[in-house]
Amino acid sequence: MKKIVLIGAGKLASQLAPALSVAPDVKLLQVYNRNHQKAKDLALSASCDYAENIRDISSQADLYIIAVSDRAIGQVATELKTVIPADSLVVHTSGATPSTVLGKSFSRFGVFYPLQTFSLSRKANFEEIPMLLDAARETDLIFLEELANSISPKVYRITDEERAQLHVAAVFACNFSNHNYVIAQEILGQKGLSLDLLRPLILETARMVQENSPENVQTGPAIRGDQPTLDRHLEQLADRPDLQHIYKLLSKHIQDAGSNRSS
Amino acid sequence: MKKIVLIGAGKLASQLAPALSVAPDVKLLQVYNRNHQKAKDLALSASCDYAENIRDISSQADLYIIAVSDRAIGQVATELKTVIPADSLVVHTSGATPSTVLGKSFSRFGVFYPLQTFSLSRKANFEEIPMLLDAARETDLIFLEELANSISPKVYRITDEERAQLHVAAVFACNFSNHNYVIAQEILGQKGLSLDLLRPLILETARMVQENSPENVQTGPAIRGDQPTLDRHLEQLADRPDLQHIYKLLSKHIQDAGSNRSS
Repeated sequence: MKKIVLIGAGKLASQLAPALSVAPDVKLLQVYNRNHQKAKDLALSASCDYAENIRDISSQADLYIIAVSDRAIGQVATELKTVIPADSLVVHTSGATPSTVLGKSFSRFGVFYPLQTFSLSRKANFEEIPMLLDAARETDLIFLEELANSISPKVYRITDEERAQLHVAAVFACNFSNHNYVIAQEILGQKGLSLDLLRPLILETARMVQENSPENVQTGPAIRGDQPTLDRHLEQLADRPDLQHIYKLLSKHIQDAGSNRSS
Repeated sequence: MKKIVLIGAGKLASQLAPALSVAPDVKLLQVYNRNHQKAKDLALSASCDYAENIRDISSQADLYIIAVSDRAIGQVATELKTVIPADSLVVHTSGATPSTVLGKSFSRFGVFYPLQTFSLSRKANFEEIPMLLDAARETDLIFLEELANSISPKVYRITDEERAQLHVAAVFACNFSNHNYVIAQEILGQKGLSLDLLRPLILETARMVQENSPENVQTGPAIRGDQPTLDRHLEQLADRPDLQHIYKLLSKHIQDAGSNRSS
């Protein structure tokens, strides 16, 4: 039985705790958060205990998972060091933070990174979520793999360097795509139109690349070299030079990428 | 019974023909395409006849649907005019082309625009597809509404001006999002990583905005004002000034949009 303490009660921790609490051969000992009420609520949803103070954190866990914001990880590790055994295995769940941040406080450290965007309201389905793992020691990595496999079939080993690269790619695939949805909604709003008109298209565009390579399903006036439509669109954005700028840059990049491939 | 002739055998026509062929109270009389073999194949998949030559197109249809590429619509309309009755109802299926292109050849014209991205390989589910309609005459618009309702519950009236706006928005929501997936795949490829790592994230990002407003689910270093991560990402893109440029522009736009809303 893998005994686990989870630190944090944000978007990820609040999805991870219930998933771990029902995973086979896993015992979620405690959750801890600076905000007692949040810790208490999360413990309730995951049917486990919670620690009121950091010094109440169990010293008996096989694994301590730090699932807090990137900038708080180092500080939490420093505090945690004072209350748990020196040879404890400690991981964080961040895509952006090197594992070595934990190496300052612990010799057995690693990363347990579920690559997904989480919200408080929408229940995450861990079976669909890639679990990206790293650890300073091979035996710890095997332990993390077993744990990850108990909540997802998609388990990968990934180095700090690869994870950093992946994080940049995720900004394009997720953050920038979502911002394009924001812009689309704004453009529609100018004529009183609802994003509902485009929601099915947004979903289908994402579905399309589940089985295809995105460059093979690129559509639109830029890839077609349809200059009259490109010109008309820019004219329609005349009162929004910021959007014209983005439109021009991305259209040109689509065309350059297309001609690089075909040449 | 609504008698229909469909002109075209591309991505949209090849999805629309089978959908119309099984719609209640609809009779797909013929499909026509310059390429005989394509027309024949499509007729087979939709269990209808096909016209070998444009002069073989039936004069008996209640509606002629021109589902060809934007730039060919005008030419097809001109040819069609010579073979069907002058008072025929003729529509096109384009998001980008004004309905008035048909007005040069016909007095009863309109638009029958399924707003979705289509591929030859993936069967479209019309029940999820918004059908955007317009017609010069109210009685024709009602006819188109009845027809559209027979394949989708999502039927909207939309003017040329609104449709033009919608088309720009769709470029951001669909074409530019897909290009961000292309870029993500490229960035991953630099370290030998697969897009499979990001496919679930891409899908969840699109799902997230099916129920939420995209600005409420924006995540990432830009919206958090996480300058160290932004700097690190730019450094990682050092050998790709083109991607740095896009990264900077979109990150700044996310931040500006965010601060406009909060101020």
